Amino acid sequence: MITTKGYAAQAPSAPLSPYTFDRKDPGVNDVTIDILYCGVCHADIHQAKNEYGGTAYPFVPGHEIIGRVHSIGKEVARHSVGDLVGVGYFLDSCRHCSSCEEGEEQYCEKGITPTQNARLKDGTVTKGGYSNTIVVDERYVLKVSESLAPAGVAPLLCAGITTYSPLRHWNVGKGHKVAVLGLGGVGHMAVKFAASFGAEVTVLSGSPSKRESALALGATHFVVTSDVAELKAVAGRFDFLIDAVSAKHDYNAYLGLLKKDGTMILLGVPPEAPQLAAFQLIARRRKIAGSFIGGIAETQEMLDYCADHNITADVEVIAPDYINDAFERTLKGDVQYRFVIDMTRLG
Amino acid sequence: MITTKGYAAQAPSAPLSPYTFDRKDPGVNDVTIDILYCGVCHADIHQAKNEYGGTAYPFVPGHEIIGRVHSIGKEVARHSVGDLVGVGYFLDSCRHCSSCEEGEEQYCEKGITPTQNARLKDGTVTKGGYSNTIVVDERYVLKVSESLAPAGVAPLLCAGITTYSPLRHWNVGKGHKVAVLGLGGVGHMAVKFAASFGAEVTVLSGSPSKRESALALGATHFVVTSDVAELKAVAGRFDFLIDAVSAKHDYNAYLGLLKKDGTMILLGVPPEAPQLAAFQLIARRRKIAGSFIGGIAETQEMLDYCADHNITADVEVIAPDYINDAFERTLKGDVQYRFVIDMTRLG
Repeated sequence: MITTKGYAAQAPSAPLSPYTFDRKDPGVNDVTIDILYCGVCHADIHQAKNEYGGTAYPFVPGHEIIGRVHSIGKEVARHSVGDLVGVGYFLDSCRHCSSCEEGEEQYCEKGITPTQNARLKDGTVTKGGYSNTIVVDERYVLKVSESLAPAGVAPLLCAGITTYSPLRHWNVGKGHKVAVLGLGGVGHMAVKFAASFGAEVTVLSGSPSKRESALALGATHFVVTSDVAELKAVAGRFDFLIDAVSAKHDYNAYLGLLKKDGTMILLGVPPEAPQLAAFQLIARRRKIAGSFIGGIAETQEMLDYCADHNITADVEVIAPDYINDAFERTLKGDVQYRFVIDMTRLG
Repeated sequence: MITTKGYAAQAPSAPLSPYTFDRKDPGVNDVTIDILYCGVCHADIHQAKNEYGGTAYPFVPGHEIIGRVHSIGKEVARHSVGDLVGVGYFLDSCRHCSSCEEGEEQYCEKGITPTQNARLKDGTVTKGGYSNTIVVDERYVLKVSESLAPAGVAPLLCAGITTYSPLRHWNVGKGHKVAVLGLGGVGHMAVKFAASFGAEVTVLSGSPSKRESALALGATHFVVTSDVAELKAVAGRFDFLIDAVSAKHDYNAYLGLLKKDGTMILLGVPPEAPQLAAFQLIARRRKIAGSFIGGIAETQEMLDYCADHNITADVEVIAPDYINDAFERTLKGDVQYRFVIDMTRLG
């Protein structure tokens, strides 16, 4: 067993606190990773508070992990000791269903094994990257370029691939007008990638104060969603609308911003299912789709693309003992745009 | 003016009754048509009762029209006196927007002019095909083959193109598994076309009694939607689900029947917008789309396809004075699968 230090929630109402636990001994295909940085995703907060149900305590969050290979099992061929690597939202899948065979493990028909809070058959529960070490099968470990600041790479493992994958799937690029709804950790990556792929990007946000930063990220237009006249002026304008909002909101108002044959892509799950007015789809043959992170091969492709194009997330690096403040500020949207924990500062 | 006989609703609560009115004198581009048959669409009933709001009375329904050309304006080049022709859901559009220029007039950015209950700029209201004659610009008149029984062709102008267009748009055919939800006038055409295009068709219906007739239409499987075990057995099975239901229903249960990347296509508008659980889309990158009738060129393509493949709607031909009974029976689903009025029997 590998003694591991981390931060855990001990109960839904408890703040995260230091926690020491054992990782399994690595197998022949496993990579043991010394964690350097871990991003703070909204899902971490919801799970810590058991807002989705099913959280097993002690709960160690974290699925935007960057680290260095500490050691490798004797069958490991893809990674070497000392390599900079990443681990994302999941660290296993069935490996045999059609989705796994197509390299789209995120849609595994038997279900992926998330990096945090997955209940394994042996009764153990996966513990995430708010910790100083993790053991992962080499197939689910990503290679990370040394050319980028690693703290800014961490959020690419979830927020990054969550936006890269649908933009690539729908071939978003030159000639497309793309709206991004919600400028948080996920939304700001949607702006960066869509702009990098050549699309004209408009940020839709409820916060007029985000205008300057939206333009700095690569958007060319900014629309305040509470301003009816501004929204009306962009009706029927967009080929794609990336909906990165997990809070309650009205799908139908935003569907009206799409052109004929336009697609609204949902990345977040509001707590209560919004109503869908069929007429908004029928009247212009519009679509609503959903997309979930990305497969291992595509995540690697994204990391390579980011290295080639000097793309990282905008992050605020924090010490582990700031995590409860970071949770509070994340819930308020008070971060540009992702907190990343420096796990080397674990006491 | 052309004196025209027909049937009209005089008020939301009134039954349809005989009504004589004037059609405009035909212009140089107009075709004057002696109406032979007109299909009875659910929308006719809802509009007669003003259930969508905005119905102008007297209201003459009818947009699944088959007739013979009685006379033509001097500039008319596409049609000749004596030709069998059809008129569908709309009889004009702006002709200049990108949708009109792409031949997808149904998505006209200025709005189409429906064949019934459209308020024109001059204050008049279009009166539909529950009548013995109609005057339509030649561009919006379809050619109909003499090889098919014309009563069975009438519903192709709305129920037919409503299903043909999305099946073609999404390239549905061999190798696809298609579910059709709701076996009425629209649904039965979805089954016929999807089967004709080579797809494997499953009918999803709340009525176990429809099994035999579904199979006779070309379906190879039948699932009773109230049977939880039957529904569960087809979870994740379909590439496409054609949703032809306008009554209240649960989108999320049916989304679960789609494969990864599957598409649910909405053709009906429930009175209250159903809730959409984003998770059902995100978990398998599924899509919900809508589709609306078809353009003039595509409607002609469909009519030609039907003539080549001997496809018509299954109809029950009625006399005009049966229309109020037909409305009642249509609302109960007591018709296989479309009433068509023989307008030559107008008194």
